[in-house]
Amino acid sequence: MGQQSNLKVVIIGGGFGGLSAARALDKASVEITLIDRRNFHLFQPLLYQVATGGLSPADISFPLRAIFKKQKNIKIVLGEVIDIDTWKGEVVLPTFSLSYDILIISAGAQYHYFGNNSWKKYAPGLKSIEDATFIRSQILRAFERSEFETDPHKQAALLSFLIIGGGPTGVELAGAIAELARETLLNDFRNINPLDARIIIIESQDRILPPYPPELSIKAAKSLQRLGVEIMTNSIVTHVTNQSVTVKSDKNEFTIPASTMLWAAGVKATGIGELLSKTITVETDKAGRIIVQPDCSIPGADNIFIIGDLAHFKDKNENVLPGLAPVAMQQGRYVGKLIKKRIKNRRTIKFQYKDKGNLTVIGRSSAVAFRGKIQLWGFTAWLLWVILHLLFLVGFENRLLVCIQWAFNYFTRNRSARLITGEKRL
Amino acid sequence: MGQQSNLKVVIIGGGFGGLSAARALDKASVEITLIDRRNFHLFQPLLYQVATGGLSPADISFPLRAIFKKQKNIKIVLGEVIDIDTWKGEVVLPTFSLSYDILIISAGAQYHYFGNNSWKKYAPGLKSIEDATFIRSQILRAFERSEFETDPHKQAALLSFLIIGGGPTGVELAGAIAELARETLLNDFRNINPLDARIIIIESQDRILPPYPPELSIKAAKSLQRLGVEIMTNSIVTHVTNQSVTVKSDKNEFTIPASTMLWAAGVKATGIGELLSKTITVETDKAGRIIVQPDCSIPGADNIFIIGDLAHFKDKNENVLPGLAPVAMQQGRYVGKLIKKRIKNRRTIKFQYKDKGNLTVIGRSSAVAFRGKIQLWGFTAWLLWVILHLLFLVGFENRLLVCIQWAFNYFTRNRSARLITGEKRL
Repeated sequence: MGQQSNLKVVIIGGGFGGLSAARALDKASVEITLIDRRNFHLFQPLLYQVATGGLSPADISFPLRAIFKKQKNIKIVLGEVIDIDTWKGEVVLPTFSLSYDILIISAGAQYHYFGNNSWKKYAPGLKSIEDATFIRSQILRAFERSEFETDPHKQAALLSFLIIGGGPTGVELAGAIAELARETLLNDFRNINPLDARIIIIESQDRILPPYPPELSIKAAKSLQRLGVEIMTNSIVTHVTNQSVTVKSDKNEFTIPASTMLWAAGVKATGIGELLSKTITVETDKAGRIIVQPDCSIPGADNIFIIGDLAHFKDKNENVLPGLAPVAMQQGRYVGKLIKKRIKNRRTIKFQYKDKGNLTVIGRSSAVAFRGKIQLWGFTAWLLWVILHLLFLVGFENRLLVCIQWAFNYFTRNRSARLITGEKRL
Repeated sequence: MGQQSNLKVVIIGGGFGGLSAARALDKASVEITLIDRRNFHLFQPLLYQVATGGLSPADISFPLRAIFKKQKNIKIVLGEVIDIDTWKGEVVLPTFSLSYDILIISAGAQYHYFGNNSWKKYAPGLKSIEDATFIRSQILRAFERSEFETDPHKQAALLSFLIIGGGPTGVELAGAIAELARETLLNDFRNINPLDARIIIIESQDRILPPYPPELSIKAAKSLQRLGVEIMTNSIVTHVTNQSVTVKSDKNEFTIPASTMLWAAGVKATGIGELLSKTITVETDKAGRIIVQPDCSIPGADNIFIIGDLAHFKDKNENVLPGLAPVAMQQGRYVGKLIKKRIKNRRTIKFQYKDKGNLTVIGRSSAVAFRGKIQLWGFTAWLLWVILHLLFLVGFENRLLVCIQWAFNYFTRNRSARLITGEKRL
């Protein structure tokens, strides 16, 4: 397909970064191959809604082939990259290799247990659809088991939900679990009272949402407390077992029994940096992110671009850009345009991030947001969140359905996707 | 809860039968316990839509606790029945037992491989949400793999979908897979042409839909052939491997290579009859169904009722009632009312099935239906199918959303839930 002379662009990862890069290259004289392990783009900011039964996986997942149905210069490959050979210019998959002229890597991040990988099986993180449906089953199963538990200690543990990490993900999860327990499940049980459920955020710093202005952290904490969420700040998790978390707080160490522990305490880059470093010198930071140049390429390899959560990009104020969807999207669009300019031998400029602000939703009618010095909270911030997310979803067929599902959930306080599924059924 | 004098009614199974029985007992002076292995009621007639990416699991699954939120005389237990002691009047679960005065068993059916259980892993049946999402992944993965398969024989096998059994389930699956390939995926690939996909129904009798009038079987076959489905009648499957099915047809035996084989050839009752037979004499038929009396109770135990797919019930013309949702629902409602009458010492009558007719959908705007001598086909039958299913779904919150999703799918020919999920991701 296409002329032989076309540049071969290989994109690894169909997340926000990869998708934006591919779209920016629409109608360019290039042959794009987009590789992903999944056959769909995942709208990660709403994954916590799947984990708490508010939305179905398909509501926030968009088949990559459907997205690019009409873009003729792109091929989609469902597969896992097992090696990258920068000398040959090849990306290696289990059964074949793909040669590239330009490589864009947007492979994202995964949860980071800071050396305690054994905690992973007790306190899963929320990155994939499978994570979300597993956590959903775990939360719902805890309520089901508590209904017929006669030992009050065990019952209390079953109704304790610990969220490790008080950043945006932890706050959103805690708010959604609290609403699930206090509103959706309120009249569902006969022996237990879902209001007895304890939802606890454990945060190592002195306030939740550390990247936010302190006033907003306080507002968010108050909103959460109104939903019944307990917040433990200055608290470090020192041990995790299948039935408890040990916390060190102000020199005291104590153990909280719980059956559901969720990890939202930090991410690290996926291991693709190691593949690159076999044939090229790459520098990574502590979180495994690859240090890139002002045009998002790797020093010494101007045909390899790293974007999104995988990239360590310093802006003009020497701040490293955070792992947020808008950063990945802007970088993807930038690299796509840069390639077009290079083809036409036009002058290229450095990448510059336009800060779109930060926004964390706490629950029905409650959120916090800031952009520079502008701060929003409560219903106003929540309304902004709804509008922005619906706008983001524009371009994806499902946006109307998601909107209707939300309206349903909002007015009925119901969460119809609260299914316990998967292999282990009880 | 309730007065001590209340009758204890235990219902095993939250399918159509169990649900109807529990609902019929609303406001009766009984203490109901409904036991199911799942926390939701599954609307099985639409399961093939999940298996082919048209609907999400939550669209056809309804949390049992939500259904019975307002019915105060019922407790829901998520658990598996491991024993039944009819002497003590107890149903045994792994961690506790429940005593009953009246037991209603509506535990359904499972796929029957007629002694060839090793075929199960190559040709899965469609009974649970997990079956449906597994089959969905398998079908979509076959297309993905064929896109990059260079060996034409292997590619042809990847694009061959064999459906073993030409009853209603087999016909609905074949029609939906054909539409997925020929409409939804039409422009999704660059190397393969989804029109090359072969969808083959293998039926042992001389026509598909054997319980239907012959004229409708012919009409259904023509509709399927218009969708590109091949139909092999008088064909018996003699062997199934992970890459082929061997078929015996008119004394010829031949092997069809395929990567996707689906089983829709027959069901048998779940094993609960064996639990009962430890303490009581139960008679079962060849399919494992328990032979019941005209009031749906077991001979010799008028406090144990068997309803739905698990029951072998002979109507006044000595015909055994088929394993259909309307049968289970009518039996459930009947038994619920019978219990109410017994409490009030009123006279009870025998169960009588009101035949609501048969309806099988083939695809967009195509179905076949009959009731007695009335026959419908094509768009008329399809419209009836849509209306009936929407009416059935009345009472469940999601009906509007399912309706909207269908409208989307109908007009856009899209299937937004075509996700490859689960542990084995590639």
